Amino acid sequence: MLTIEEIYKAQNVLKDVARHTKLVPAALREDAQVFLKPECLQLTGSFKLRGAYYKISQLTPEEKSRGVIACSAGNHAQGVALGATRAGIKSLICLPSGAPISKVEATKRFGAEVCLVQGVYDDAYAKAIELRDKYGYTLVHPFDDPLVITGQGTIGLEILQDLPDADIIVVPVGGGGLISGVAFAAKTLNPKIKVYGVQAEGAPSMASSLECHRRIHLNNVSTIADGIAVKEPGINTFDICNRYVDGIVTVSEDEIAAAILNLIEKQKLVAEGAGAVSVAAVMFNKIPVKDKKVVCLVSGGNIDVTILSRVINRGLTVGGRLSTLIINLADKPGQLSGVCKVIAELGGNIISVVHDRMDSHNSINGCVIRIELETRNADHIREIKDGLNEEGYQVM
Amino acid sequence: MLTIEEIYKAQNVLKDVARHTKLVPAALREDAQVFLKPECLQLTGSFKLRGAYYKISQLTPEEKSRGVIACSAGNHAQGVALGATRAGIKSLICLPSGAPISKVEATKRFGAEVCLVQGVYDDAYAKAIELRDKYGYTLVHPFDDPLVITGQGTIGLEILQDLPDADIIVVPVGGGGLISGVAFAAKTLNPKIKVYGVQAEGAPSMASSLECHRRIHLNNVSTIADGIAVKEPGINTFDICNRYVDGIVTVSEDEIAAAILNLIEKQKLVAEGAGAVSVAAVMFNKIPVKDKKVVCLVSGGNIDVTILSRVINRGLTVGGRLSTLIINLADKPGQLSGVCKVIAELGGNIISVVHDRMDSHNSINGCVIRIELETRNADHIREIKDGLNEEGYQVM
Repeated sequence: MLTIEEIYKAQNVLKDVARHTKLVPAALREDAQVFLKPECLQLTGSFKLRGAYYKISQLTPEEKSRGVIACSAGNHAQGVALGATRAGIKSLICLPSGAPISKVEATKRFGAEVCLVQGVYDDAYAKAIELRDKYGYTLVHPFDDPLVITGQGTIGLEILQDLPDADIIVVPVGGGGLISGVAFAAKTLNPKIKVYGVQAEGAPSMASSLECHRRIHLNNVSTIADGIAVKEPGINTFDICNRYVDGIVTVSEDEIAAAILNLIEKQKLVAEGAGAVSVAAVMFNKIPVKDKKVVCLVSGGNIDVTILSRVINRGLTVGGRLSTLIINLADKPGQLSGVCKVIAELGGNIISVVHDRMDSHNSINGCVIRIELETRNADHIREIKDGLNEEGYQVM
Repeated sequence: MLTIEEIYKAQNVLKDVARHTKLVPAALREDAQVFLKPECLQLTGSFKLRGAYYKISQLTPEEKSRGVIACSAGNHAQGVALGATRAGIKSLICLPSGAPISKVEATKRFGAEVCLVQGVYDDAYAKAIELRDKYGYTLVHPFDDPLVITGQGTIGLEILQDLPDADIIVVPVGGGGLISGVAFAAKTLNPKIKVYGVQAEGAPSMASSLECHRRIHLNNVSTIADGIAVKEPGINTFDICNRYVDGIVTVSEDEIAAAILNLIEKQKLVAEGAGAVSVAAVMFNKIPVKDKKVVCLVSGGNIDVTILSRVINRGLTVGGRLSTLIINLADKPGQLSGVCKVIAELGGNIISVVHDRMDSHNSINGCVIRIELETRNADHIREIKDGLNEEGYQVM
């Protein structure tokens, strides 16, 4: 069904529309050579443009004249919107009404008409089907369409063109369209290459499905990596992953946050949760990479900036670089001063203090202070806690 | 003093040490074609490695055996540290004792020995001079050294190699080392190209100096773009800028924050304040770019993540996408519910509510609520405020 010839053709079709993103070396590990494929730098901020545009390019003139429809609150929406605009055709995107303002605005900016549907994703999807049937739009599926998969496969070609001796490619997995295209292309060109997928622990639909040898439907998925929070793999993608993928691993929410933070601080790249899971898998030893040349596909960077703030804080906390101490104090002069002195002497940097006498949980003549501070690592936090306890302050 | 031949030589010296960062198209304006030169993706997170390594490469074997010293709390420290490590020589970096933990750790990680000096930058600099005189280290100046300038000039070569018909290059300016090298290289290869510098309004030392035709010393500099908060241009850099630079413009703190946010959201790149001033200048019409091919040099991405959080919030606020309403309410049931209803109906997304009855500023039977909400833009905020006032809620 997929052919390498058609992926080459897609590369040609995409050459003036999608960017050929360049691999960036990343000092993620000392025991392996790691490169990032930064599809977060792709137009629309994710790889989705590739599959959407290739799909649209293959429509008949008659289909093109009727336009396309898609359902998504995220990267697929923007990919279809820009893909259609570049092809000079109309696009209509159904979004659940609770979609973030920033995503709705971005979708409009890329030229799509937006239809906000009361309810959740499934309601928006039902509406998209209804509108398709009524007006004859072509539905662009986010992953389970061979043409879409073919478009994503161009990433596999680019990786091997830029790094012909890559040993391992690590790919984020939601519905499986991206990894299907990449694995098929890469394995066809080099059967020895390993391709691993990564899912969030809270949405392991493809991992579970491959394990059970049948497509599993998860009732609930929950992860900050919303771009890969997919309940069920596609029929095509399940089949391709079964044949071409060497394994799917999962990463936790804290590991994803740590990977996003690492990309910001060390690589100066903004990845969304879904985009960072590949990096998380390599950072946290989920995949055997020792002495290998590894490419982590960073699939997208469309993270809401308010969520980014929260992720940064979480990542700093997990890494022991931000911590919060709750301390019980007697309510008399000099207590706060004494606490601050101990912390300063041990090299902690206080960034906020909440000093609360009114809390009903306190004893009548005590108070609680809540100090947020910057620290070097978990050992440093321990050192500061011990220091405070030694001076008689009661750290809770 | 500078020669284009030596800049070519530096490019060759640097080819296995520094990355040739690739231009990234950026949809910053509709009336101009804008590209970013993302030196934030350079090793150490900024261009500084180039000048530092080239300087070190030109030391005599005897000088190399004694090692180098530098004074910096930022990018220069990391550039010298990695440059020296790559050259296999010792480096000692003097930092003021208040330098952020993250910068100290990064400098050590790149292989330098760190000497923390009580006091501010000037104290650390005095200490560096003292240690140089005592132990015979070579001081690597952050900008006013022809060899350092030559190293930075390789960026000018790369830009013209990758985009030969560039019309304008926009460069962040602190001490002037970067723009001196870039302007000399670019103007030598193409005398018609325009090179503009950008400084922060709070640290306009080169702008003022060029205007007054002599080097001005500012007593105070203050900006979030700490990488270009320099009080006085160099002797060499002032002279070169005088001859080769077409103008220096300044940008405000809010413009810098908006540029950082734009780079994160639209380009998925992390820039520090100093790195983003070039983008700010183009976004906010400081430079005539209409119908031109413009390269914005994004000089670095080493922004403290805690500061990044604050910048994101500031940028959202300036853009009207985050706002805080203070509302006086009668202290009776249903008031908060009513306010929230109005906001919801008008499409605002509430992200925090502080409802305070204890504030001594309130009347005895009133209370104040402070609502933080996501909005689309300034008009949207106005609309919500008007809506609340119409319903009888008193927005302060």
